[in-house]
Amino acid sequence: MAKNFTTREDNYSQWYNDLVIKADLAENSAVRGCMVIKPYGYAIWEKMQAALDKMFKDTGHSNAYFPLFIPKSFFSREASHVEGFAKECAVVTHYRLKASPDGKGVVVDEDAKLEEELIVRPTSETIIWDTYRNWIQSYRDLPILVNQWANVVRWEMRTRLFLRTAEFLWQEGHTAHATSEEAIAETQQMLEVYATFAEEFMAMPVLKGFKSPNERFAGAIETYCIEALMQDGKALQAGTSHFLGQNFAKAFDVKFLSKENKLDYVWATSWGVSTRLMGALVMAHSDDNGLVLPPKLAPFQVVIVPIYKKDEDKIRITEKALEIKKALISKGISVKFDDRESYTPGYKFNEHEFRGVPVRLALGPRDLENGTVEVARRDTMEKEVLQIQDIENKIQHLLDQIQDNLYQKALTFRDNSTHYVDTWEEFVKTLDEKAGFIYAHWDGTAETEQKIKEETKATIRLIPLIEKKEDGKCIYTGKPSTQRVVFARSY
Amino acid sequence: MAKNFTTREDNYSQWYNDLVIKADLAENSAVRGCMVIKPYGYAIWEKMQAALDKMFKDTGHSNAYFPLFIPKSFFSREASHVEGFAKECAVVTHYRLKASPDGKGVVVDEDAKLEEELIVRPTSETIIWDTYRNWIQSYRDLPILVNQWANVVRWEMRTRLFLRTAEFLWQEGHTAHATSEEAIAETQQMLEVYATFAEEFMAMPVLKGFKSPNERFAGAIETYCIEALMQDGKALQAGTSHFLGQNFAKAFDVKFLSKENKLDYVWATSWGVSTRLMGALVMAHSDDNGLVLPPKLAPFQVVIVPIYKKDEDKIRITEKALEIKKALISKGISVKFDDRESYTPGYKFNEHEFRGVPVRLALGPRDLENGTVEVARRDTMEKEVLQIQDIENKIQHLLDQIQDNLYQKALTFRDNSTHYVDTWEEFVKTLDEKAGFIYAHWDGTAETEQKIKEETKATIRLIPLIEKKEDGKCIYTGKPSTQRVVFARSY
Repeated sequence: MAKNFTTREDNYSQWYNDLVIKADLAENSAVRGCMVIKPYGYAIWEKMQAALDKMFKDTGHSNAYFPLFIPKSFFSREASHVEGFAKECAVVTHYRLKASPDGKGVVVDEDAKLEEELIVRPTSETIIWDTYRNWIQSYRDLPILVNQWANVVRWEMRTRLFLRTAEFLWQEGHTAHATSEEAIAETQQMLEVYATFAEEFMAMPVLKGFKSPNERFAGAIETYCIEALMQDGKALQAGTSHFLGQNFAKAFDVKFLSKENKLDYVWATSWGVSTRLMGALVMAHSDDNGLVLPPKLAPFQVVIVPIYKKDEDKIRITEKALEIKKALISKGISVKFDDRESYTPGYKFNEHEFRGVPVRLALGPRDLENGTVEVARRDTMEKEVLQIQDIENKIQHLLDQIQDNLYQKALTFRDNSTHYVDTWEEFVKTLDEKAGFIYAHWDGTAETEQKIKEETKATIRLIPLIEKKEDGKCIYTGKPSTQRVVFARSY
Repeated sequence: MAKNFTTREDNYSQWYNDLVIKADLAENSAVRGCMVIKPYGYAIWEKMQAALDKMFKDTGHSNAYFPLFIPKSFFSREASHVEGFAKECAVVTHYRLKASPDGKGVVVDEDAKLEEELIVRPTSETIIWDTYRNWIQSYRDLPILVNQWANVVRWEMRTRLFLRTAEFLWQEGHTAHATSEEAIAETQQMLEVYATFAEEFMAMPVLKGFKSPNERFAGAIETYCIEALMQDGKALQAGTSHFLGQNFAKAFDVKFLSKENKLDYVWATSWGVSTRLMGALVMAHSDDNGLVLPPKLAPFQVVIVPIYKKDEDKIRITEKALEIKKALISKGISVKFDDRESYTPGYKFNEHEFRGVPVRLALGPRDLENGTVEVARRDTMEKEVLQIQDIENKIQHLLDQIQDNLYQKALTFRDNSTHYVDTWEEFVKTLDEKAGFIYAHWDGTAETEQKIKEETKATIRLIPLIEKKEDGKCIYTGKPSTQRVVFARSY
């Protein structure tokens, strides 16, 4: 695992791409825009899934599965949804191939043309609400609290591993409620779940808020979001939770009989996070030595590397290493004992460092004599020699420290990259020279937002959830404003 | 949950379909051949996934993810694979829709035609071996032990929920090895994993063997399989494990440098089970009262139903029920306390019986006085009144008993439905009157197998793994044979 990869300062974008590939997280495939998620990368995604899935279930949700394909006509049912989603997508037109007349390979069988084209789902509101129509008759059938783990496809022209790919993995929650209040409460609850996950598991601080109308989900009344700041000062939308009102219920005719015996349309929410979080995780903490993983999401938290020259040392060291491994596992710590014989300890050190293993233990003959072990932490690159006695509690404590340190470091970075500006000149200068989150006044119109975007590539990332009323003037038009919003350039 | 559904005797096929739909396992969707897996059904699938995933990881495998789409040309690379898979499949030809000229909805944008069509994966050997080419240089990179949980699409004309659907969920293991012996050992190991899973978790006895050439996976040298017997005497293939030789390595040019410094093609296996197992599970144990679930795969193993009329009773009963729930959970038993107020105890009894909850506890005022609880087991429909004291151990024991009883019952059924026949008349008669597994002699030719299939719809389900050499004559041609094979009609 060589360190011959770009530094962040040299070329941040290249650094990210190199890191994802060289740390064995993912790679491009033979299919344009579709990635292969490699075992090490997938193991991190599995940790994310497990943590999120537990949080979904703890808040009363169940998983289900809906079809990959959506009839084309479904997209036209909800007017704004079709605008947002039915454009760049994979279209299935035929259901059969046949031997090529020239005897070389296969060709599409034109006799097997579908009557109605099928779209590979870019998101599942339409097919799910078409299904819910049969599940819902009365208030007794509500709420429906369902989540789906699935692949989706959006035909992106410019793709980047994890951050923007044609196919990606995600979860999409789709809930149905009897009242507007209940649906809004659900939308907000799931935003909190996402924020908690980002901060406690990914060690990544996030801002919470809602989107301006321009940036809303196609078909939503309100889109709530969490936004994180990457090390290059660009924002990344890390999760969204949508209050859909009765839009999809109306589009798919989903009504229920209320307790008061009145027929009404059902209220909806949807919410999702995707493998994009993998990109956020990489960019939030990693450095010029490679990946840095928070202990709670690392495929293994500790690696033990044995160091020996003589065979007799090997036996004794292996014995001690397995003893340590067992002690750590008893505390619920995940451990890899790297006893591969075809690689040197130095090679292993570099590899695990590059792949972001939070803690490395090295065990040599001298350690056996002294009852010690060398402990290296990935986040600070610090090393110390510890007594093996009670090692499981020491390491557990250290892992907690690392998790906390990563969060604090990211928080400090964000604080230092958060700016309040009041004039257009200051805004443009800050964007170009400092980047980061910029709190500024905005006149509340879509036109102004669009013009700011065209001139600076910055967008309103969110309108803060907790309003801090403050009179001011729009940085672009000078018109009055009562609240600052958060601008940034973004992924 | 009414019992107004078909009995097995009346119409087995209808019974199955009614059961799947009325027990809330799955339903048909708006997309032909694609099903919706409902929360209760998906919860069973999640239990299956968890158990299998652990077994895969315990045998050294990691999960990864490969693209949903496969370039059309990939299928032509492996000659027999294209025959088997590149026919009935979903073909993506375009990547964009546009507003319809008549202003109504959206139409395919003919300007957005793909240069090469993409096939929605029916199985992933081709795209994975195209990827492995870059992962493998030397023997040090081997073995690769990777599994993928994914959706796949095969354009089936006649579909049945779980048993045969256009889209289904599955796992597909794809491994790469330095030697033929190692790959064969892997193939056999995974067959054992599947058999263990079927018997220990699904409580479903299976036969192990390998397929005749006719029934082999397209591209395999040898296909191993497990076969289970359903209650209507038809066989169901429950899992397959393929030794692929060097076929895919040759098709995708995947070579490695051996320890001896020689360049050779890599050896491959693939193995998979799918949501088809859900159909097998339903058919293996369920009865005319509804679903019967083995405790190890039930979404919840125990349901507690409170019975009261007065509010004061409700409080005391709820308290006791929660106490019991806590005691059961402490033993790792999953419990639902069904305290819904809008349904009567009778309705709840029926619903949980129909949905196959293994154990039901009913708790009324009289029970509180006596320190008792009524315990009903779903498999035998027996009820008894037990002292609440030590209830967690009693129920744990009962769940073990139920799991074992279901297996024994299915085994007895299979034993009684297994026949040895030596003549064609006997064969045809047994098939029509008794069905089940038929051990008979076969001359070993594809022609004879094909003719038997055409005349009787029976196929060779497998050639037993443990050879029992026995001289005999082919039931169809009278030619000599040295071993009986297993015939059956099948799903």
